[in-house]
Amino acid sequence: MKNLLSIEEVSNEEIYAILKRAAAFEAGEPTQLEQDYLVANLFFEPSTRTKTSFETAERKVGATVIPFEAGFSSTLKGETLYDTVKTLEMIGMDAVVIRHKDDAYYKELLEGINVSVINAGDGAGQHPSQCLLDLFTIFKEFGKFEGLNVTIVGDVSHSRVAKSNASALQRLGANVHFVCPKEWQGDYSEARHDWDELLHTSDVVMLLRVQHERDAAYDGFTTEGYHAQFGLTKEREQQMKDGAIIMHPAPVNRGVEIDSDLVECDRSRIFEQVRNGVFVRMAIVETILKGRN
Amino acid sequence: MKNLLSIEEVSNEEIYAILKRAAAFEAGEPTQLEQDYLVANLFFEPSTRTKTSFETAERKVGATVIPFEAGFSSTLKGETLYDTVKTLEMIGMDAVVIRHKDDAYYKELLEGINVSVINAGDGAGQHPSQCLLDLFTIFKEFGKFEGLNVTIVGDVSHSRVAKSNASALQRLGANVHFVCPKEWQGDYSEARHDWDELLHTSDVVMLLRVQHERDAAYDGFTTEGYHAQFGLTKEREQQMKDGAIIMHPAPVNRGVEIDSDLVECDRSRIFEQVRNGVFVRMAIVETILKGRN
Amino acid sequence: MKNLLSIEEVSNEEIYAILKRAAAFEAGEPTQLEQDYLVANLFFEPSTRTKTSFETAERKVGATVIPFEAGFSSTLKGETLYDTVKTLEMIGMDAVVIRHKDDAYYKELLEGINVSVINAGDGAGQHPSQCLLDLFTIFKEFGKFEGLNVTIVGDVSHSRVAKSNASALQRLGANVHFVCPKEWQGDYSEARHDWDELLHTSDVVMLLRVQHERDAAYDGFTTEGYHAQFGLTKEREQQMKDGAIIMHPAPVNRGVEIDSDLVECDRSRIFEQVRNGVFVRMAIVETILKGRN
Repeated sequence: MKNLLSIEEVSNEEIYAILKRAAAFEAGEPTQLEQDYLVANLFFEPSTRTKTSFETAERKVGATVIPFEAGFSSTLKGETLYDTVKTLEMIGMDAVVIRHKDDAYYKELLEGINVSVINAGDGAGQHPSQCLLDLFTIFKEFGKFEGLNVTIVGDVSHSRVAKSNASALQRLGANVHFVCPKEWQGDYSEARHDWDELLHTSDVVMLLRVQHERDAAYDGFTTEGYHAQFGLTKEREQQMKDGAIIMHPAPVNRGVEIDSDLVECDRSRIFEQVRNGVFVRMAIVETILKGRN
Repeated sequence: MKNLLSIEEVSNEEIYAILKRAAAFEAGEPTQLEQDYLVANLFFEPSTRTKTSFETAERKVGATVIPFEAGFSSTLKGETLYDTVKTLEMIGMDAVVIRHKDDAYYKELLEGINVSVINAGDGAGQHPSQCLLDLFTIFKEFGKFEGLNVTIVGDVSHSRVAKSNASALQRLGANVHFVCPKEWQGDYSEARHDWDELLHTSDVVMLLRVQHERDAAYDGFTTEGYHAQFGLTKEREQQMKDGAIIMHPAPVNRGVEIDSDLVECDRSRIFEQVRNGVFVRMAIVETILKGRN
Repeated sequence: MKNLLSIEEVSNEEIYAILKRAAAFEAGEPTQLEQDYLVANLFFEPSTRTKTSFETAERKVGATVIPFEAGFSSTLKGETLYDTVKTLEMIGMDAVVIRHKDDAYYKELLEGINVSVINAGDGAGQHPSQCLLDLFTIFKEFGKFEGLNVTIVGDVSHSRVAKSNASALQRLGANVHFVCPKEWQGDYSEARHDWDELLHTSDVVMLLRVQHERDAAYDGFTTEGYHAQFGLTKEREQQMKDGAIIMHPAPVNRGVEIDSDLVECDRSRIFEQVRNGVFVRMAIVETILKGRN
């Protein structure tokens, strides 16, 4: 793998290899990187969680992280993303991790750029490292994907997570269901607008964040109204089947997508996902940097 | 010590242990930390001085510092401080240093959070690492606290420094006096509104910063008026007793709290306090990280 | 060298020593620094390129870089630059790299400051590390400066690059010509307002950035108009002599100073300059830190 741009480009074999390596890191295995690599994190959209996770993973596999403040960068002076990334390549970066508000921003980087690009989220497009950490969380829990029932709840039409996860999970053999308000179903014509009957059969309930900042259409809902119709209330949680788990990419809007008291309940893997994210990103960064030799 | 939240929670014995360890660091002793610890600095209020001091101290005791940009963090998306800190815990932090505008923000972190919390300033509340570095500066000078006369001058009612220092100094045996405009005395009913008679007896004159940004009531004073009545002028400095020292938590408003020419005069320990701050913070961070084993 | 403030203060001998050391770094030689040095980068004006280059160079010579967020610093609270730098000195920095909007900001740091200061750009004044990397790029290409014809094109009156480079190149024996709109010639009375006849004789065409943000007088030009009269078009590039090279300090306004297709053409050293910048800054930082013993 030279780059990690979208989960569609990662084969099932490569996915399992990353999950295996993440498990090895969790078990305490050391990095296999022997030389010094330089990495920079270009977050043109704020994201503490993902950025901090990458920053930590990069250091844990032994890379040197060069700080980059996107908010003060030359893109403010009208520089193209290509020129910014090419500049970082010439400065000596081996890989750059990029979050950007434009869908598929990385297309302008495919030609002429030699530094490896890891996509940490593009517009309403992909978020492959989040997808891989979600897969890792599910695989650790169930030891397989085949036949699992995964229900994704929320604004599927605007969600990077929904798009990445649904395509990967289906490819790996899981059954994926969608529950959302009718206004937010987008291309997901199979989405249901009432999730209660799925509660009893789902192995995984994957809640999506209500992203107030992204979608003016959210204005149609009060947070209480959303919580009542689509949120994971205590009543709903009690109807979930034995062994079923709750996931959420975070940050959580407590009392909207999920009752605040459930965030750390027995079924919840919400903070466990954060922990898993570091191991998965260690595996991603190590795999890509090793591939540069 | 798992956390350092307020100086009140630190026993006299623990204070002396930190001062001793800071002196050892100043004398060139190496860190006692043997494993790799991760630390993040969450400064929700700007503070170059304190943040840079912690950043340096953390590296000097051998910790790995993970960058965290509070200005771009998920708290902007409405995430609770608990969730932000819990997230950093799951990412692998061993300790977080936090500055926050809310008084006692850390109370919501006492339950459920395992990462160590070092308070680098909460609202108008505490600033325990500043207190410890002030104590270190005084102890290095006089070798004791008992019987020392310390005069704190300025906006005592809004000062984190005044609150932390006064309580610790009194507990350690010093006599603490306050001088301030009547409007700013707050709960310090014993404060005097004319400091000149204290000039001759004070071993330590501790100036507080006039914080224009914090208190609209300051509008009543011109900076010249404040300087004339409460500032340390050259005339006042000449009345100080032999061996007495001047302290200020900085940044200094030159010509307001103190005549610009006195900032680096013989009596001044203002920049020495900055230097001492690194040794004291090395001691704090090392003590807390060692305690996690 | 204790400081690097302006290229005028650097002797020809020192310039050649830095170029030699940069070449050694490019050839893979290790750092000569044996102890741990602390460095901070104070960029009060945004500059990804220069900052990232210094950040990388500092790490490559083995220094420890302490993060400093100028946008959140105490200068916002009215602290003088002297006090900020003195504070960083007391915290333990050995060198600070500063970019600041004020011309010759460093004059207030000459007395009383012991930390080394590396000027990374002052107002419309100097940018000595950029100058040295430009010299390195030219020297690598031609093996000499004597007799080379260098044409500097653009807003010479406001350009840090023009000022630093012209004085150094002339001192080293090159012939320097200027081409610019009449309105932008400033003190350069010898500047021409038509560059075409210089195309055939120039060994180096050095384009300056049109800095929209700096000069309201730019409003008189459309970008198309500037490109047609002063930009490096494909037609002009074809008239350049064999072996002549194109330089630009970047970031480039594609289609303004230069045709977008020429940015990575055979003659262009634009990205090579970025690469060279790291080696030159390694040499600068190493030279200054070694000099502190």
